[in-house]
Amino acid sequence: MIELSVKTTKRTQAINITSQIARVVKDEKGSLLHIYTPHTTCGLVINEEADPNVIRDIMEALDRMVPADYPYTHMEGNSDAHIKAVLTGSSVSIPLSGRDLNLGTWQGIFFMEFDGPRERKVIVTII
Amino acid sequence: MIELSVKTTKRTQAINITSQIARVVKDEKGSLLHIYTPHTTCGLVINEEADPNVIRDIMEALDRMVPADYPYTHMEGNSDAHIKAVLTGSSVSIPLSGRDLNLGTWQGIFFMEFDGPRERKVIVTII
Amino acid sequence: MIELSVKTTKRTQAINITSQIARVVKDEKGSLLHIYTPHTTCGLVINEEADPNVIRDIMEALDRMVPADYPYTHMEGNSDAHIKAVLTGSSVSIPLSGRDLNLGTWQGIFFMEFDGPRERKVIVTII
Repeated sequence: MIELSVKTTKRTQAINITSQIARVVKDEKGSLLHIYTPHTTCGLVINEEADPNVIRDIMEALDRMVPADYPYTHMEGNSDAHIKAVLTGSSVSIPLSGRDLNLGTWQGIFFMEFDGPRERKVIVTII
Repeated sequence: MIELSVKTTKRTQAINITSQIARVVKDEKGSLLHIYTPHTTCGLVINEEADPNVIRDIMEALDRMVPADYPYTHMEGNSDAHIKAVLTGSSVSIPLSGRDLNLGTWQGIFFMEFDGPRERKVIVTII
Repeated sequence: MIELSVKTTKRTQAINITSQIARVVKDEKGSLLHIYTPHTTCGLVINEEADPNVIRDIMEALDRMVPADYPYTHMEGNSDAHIKAVLTGSSVSIPLSGRDLNLGTWQGIFFMEFDGPRERKVIVTII
């Protein structure tokens, strides 16, 4: 188990953590990589990293599906972030071939901040 | 593989199963905990357990995104539950350090009933 | 790690890959089955396979939640497919008992094409 840090600088922000994860993996061996975030207002997503407009469209679609200004019950003003965290999920997992990550040609791993800016943790487990 | 039971009492209901899961894990050792539900109208979610209004906001947001009264094709009247099951997912997984579950400070594990009341199964696997 | 092929014939299409997966699993032994797709405009879902109207309702609900004709930023005309890929996810995992897949009575495994027709890959890992 390896713990990484991700620093976010905006309220909502997609950060490409693929190379940070790849650096961890290259010293380990296994058949599955598991990436987990122990927070409740952010998520992890695998999608296209080539054109940054793709992850922008994804982030904006989540904003439209889960409006920030709805009269939620929870009084901290971040229920939208909790809901988006559920829709994206707290973990992703990717098959490994020895030390090689089996990401597809266009795939990158994104940390999705929905209630930043914050200092976040990501836990990497290799099985 | 350990099988647990979850009894739900309403049509839609979020049940915090964190302590039920923690009891199972404390007698086992591994590096990853996998929790699975073998049903098609419920889901599993990791999110805040401190303020119960958070999971209530999550459940109500799913209700708005997937209205129960839409004219669906499936004739059993529970298509909304199947769709919510897809949005939340049939499994969650959490890193383990020996016998310790690496849940974050605010995280709890919730069984999400979308078509209850029912007697449900949850399958716990430790790797 | 075993690589399978899935050929899709429409732009959006749910393909039941349960028996294709079961054939792979019957020659292997393990405690967890992991299924992954290395693409960014499709997803994997576990839900009811008995009535095909269920997966049709799921696909159509995703169409309503993520309209294809919204003015997205990404210029390839398939942002809706990327967003649906995020909502469904790039992997599913199912507990194994030796060679037996612990799918529930009604559960099937579906490959969700959101930007076909294409020749797709699915990577199966047994742990």
